[in-house]
Amino acid sequence: MESFSKRLTDAVLRRQNPVVVGLDPRFTSLPVGLTEGVDERDRSAVAAAYLEFCRGVIDVVAPLVPAVKPQAAFFEQLGPAGMTVLEATVRYAREKGLLVILDGKRNDIGSTAIAYAEGYLGPPDSSSWGADALTVSPYLGDDSLTPFMDVAVARGAGIFVLVKTSNPGGATFQDLVAQQQPVYRYVADWVQRQAAATAGTDRYGCVGAVVGATWPEQLAELRQAMPQAWLLVPGFGSQGGGPEDVRGALDQGGLGALINSSRAIIFAHSRPEYKDQYGDAQWQRAVEEAALEMIEQMRAVIP
Amino acid sequence: MESFSKRLTDAVLRRQNPVVVGLDPRFTSLPVGLTEGVDERDRSAVAAAYLEFCRGVIDVVAPLVPAVKPQAAFFEQLGPAGMTVLEATVRYAREKGLLVILDGKRNDIGSTAIAYAEGYLGPPDSSSWGADALTVSPYLGDDSLTPFMDVAVARGAGIFVLVKTSNPGGATFQDLVAQQQPVYRYVADWVQRQAAATAGTDRYGCVGAVVGATWPEQLAELRQAMPQAWLLVPGFGSQGGGPEDVRGALDQGGLGALINSSRAIIFAHSRPEYKDQYGDAQWQRAVEEAALEMIEQMRAVIP
Repeated sequence: MESFSKRLTDAVLRRQNPVVVGLDPRFTSLPVGLTEGVDERDRSAVAAAYLEFCRGVIDVVAPLVPAVKPQAAFFEQLGPAGMTVLEATVRYAREKGLLVILDGKRNDIGSTAIAYAEGYLGPPDSSSWGADALTVSPYLGDDSLTPFMDVAVARGAGIFVLVKTSNPGGATFQDLVAQQQPVYRYVADWVQRQAAATAGTDRYGCVGAVVGATWPEQLAELRQAMPQAWLLVPGFGSQGGGPEDVRGALDQGGLGALINSSRAIIFAHSRPEYKDQYGDAQWQRAVEEAALEMIEQMRAVIP
Repeated sequence: MESFSKRLTDAVLRRQNPVVVGLDPRFTSLPVGLTEGVDERDRSAVAAAYLEFCRGVIDVVAPLVPAVKPQAAFFEQLGPAGMTVLEATVRYAREKGLLVILDGKRNDIGSTAIAYAEGYLGPPDSSSWGADALTVSPYLGDDSLTPFMDVAVARGAGIFVLVKTSNPGGATFQDLVAQQQPVYRYVADWVQRQAAATAGTDRYGCVGAVVGATWPEQLAELRQAMPQAWLLVPGFGSQGGGPEDVRGALDQGGLGALINSSRAIIFAHSRPEYKDQYGDAQWQRAVEEAALEMIEQMRAVIP
């Protein structure tokens, strides 16, 4: 089986951009056509609207970008009905040729970590959820991360470990300094070691890192500290990060980082610049415009 | 609505012990009667076996202990079928009068954290999963924890934040020392502040901490550092912690800490001391014996 890193490299080169579209369905933000007549308290009905919405986004972005990133929380909020729709969304995206990075920020130890990894990672025939990669939280330490990595590698999948997150509160514990190094740097060092160990003959490995676009200085520092890790960069767009902030994350060939945008693309029909032109009725046109706009911005900053 | 801390206090006093039974179903560890003829690759059939098993454990322990702790990973491993069974397990346990602490180690930021919290916490009529409390990972910092706390308090539920976990690798990042204090101590200070803020007129608040029984020295230190936080203590039994190790976590009235045991109770039919007497056929008798044994051990160490 081809490695996750190889598949990701191919996908980015094929689409000639590193954009990841975040699938964060929220009931009150959906185009009105999808929620009209739906009772917000009816979880199955809301889940059905989420699926229609996510499929609509996937149809538009599949020919344009290498990957999508469903946010598990919004599906889990709906209970089992939401989880059924999450599974359908992952499978639909894969069928359309997209890589799927499931944003679940899971973590546990030993055999429990293996259960998560086996549940979420790998081709749909070997795993329930069938994602190409999963985000993982590092607080439980080395023996919580290794099982995720082992399952991922065995199944041609990947993991992205939270290193320096995009939110202001990311500093609370991540920026504590132990022996001249912030905590996030220790996590980064772990990621780099495992990225190197899983790279084989590729430039990048199958263990990557989440580093927010909202900390451009640390993004540059962490790019250097993890030369063989794919960086998954949230915080672009709605959270304030711009094209110049992420330039340093990409290598000369435009590889090595994935730049995520969620709301600014999927809810583009509500953005002032698209609202009048497309509005709710032509929401997929707005998604397409917003995706193309971001792709152009990214191509302009590829070194 | 009564606060989580109040309900937990009542439950511990009613049962006169602080034992939490961990519901960690694993296919190959189930009593043979529940797995005979079940194809391990058939996720729906495995999920059905998990539900039968969990209900069987709940029937036995509901009159004995205050709470159960389902481990989300083992249900998620089975995909949507597992999640449906997780929901049914939580509801069954509540119907039988048990408090339910869902071990999901979730974490995210802002509105995404709210989505998790709203999905998992609160009475079954307000939340899909309907747990009384959820375990939460702290790596993303202050603004990732506050939303969980806010939703919990509003719904009469609680959270347990990972502070010092029971696994050996827990030391990797948690024990890094910044300005004379380990990282876990900073997390503990956050927990204590919020425990105090949510305690009202009770002794303990609705924000608790996970502290492993495998680190008795730190358990004593953290008990002192978080005088108003309920401690959820894993690592007892199979992971090596014993009654003497957890003595210091309990206050004079036997409150303030919950001691979790999973495999040693739920898979007691495989333990050498019960195997011959009960075996697979009378597995529920073995569960009862093992639970009663632990309850007795705990009563012996209550200060």
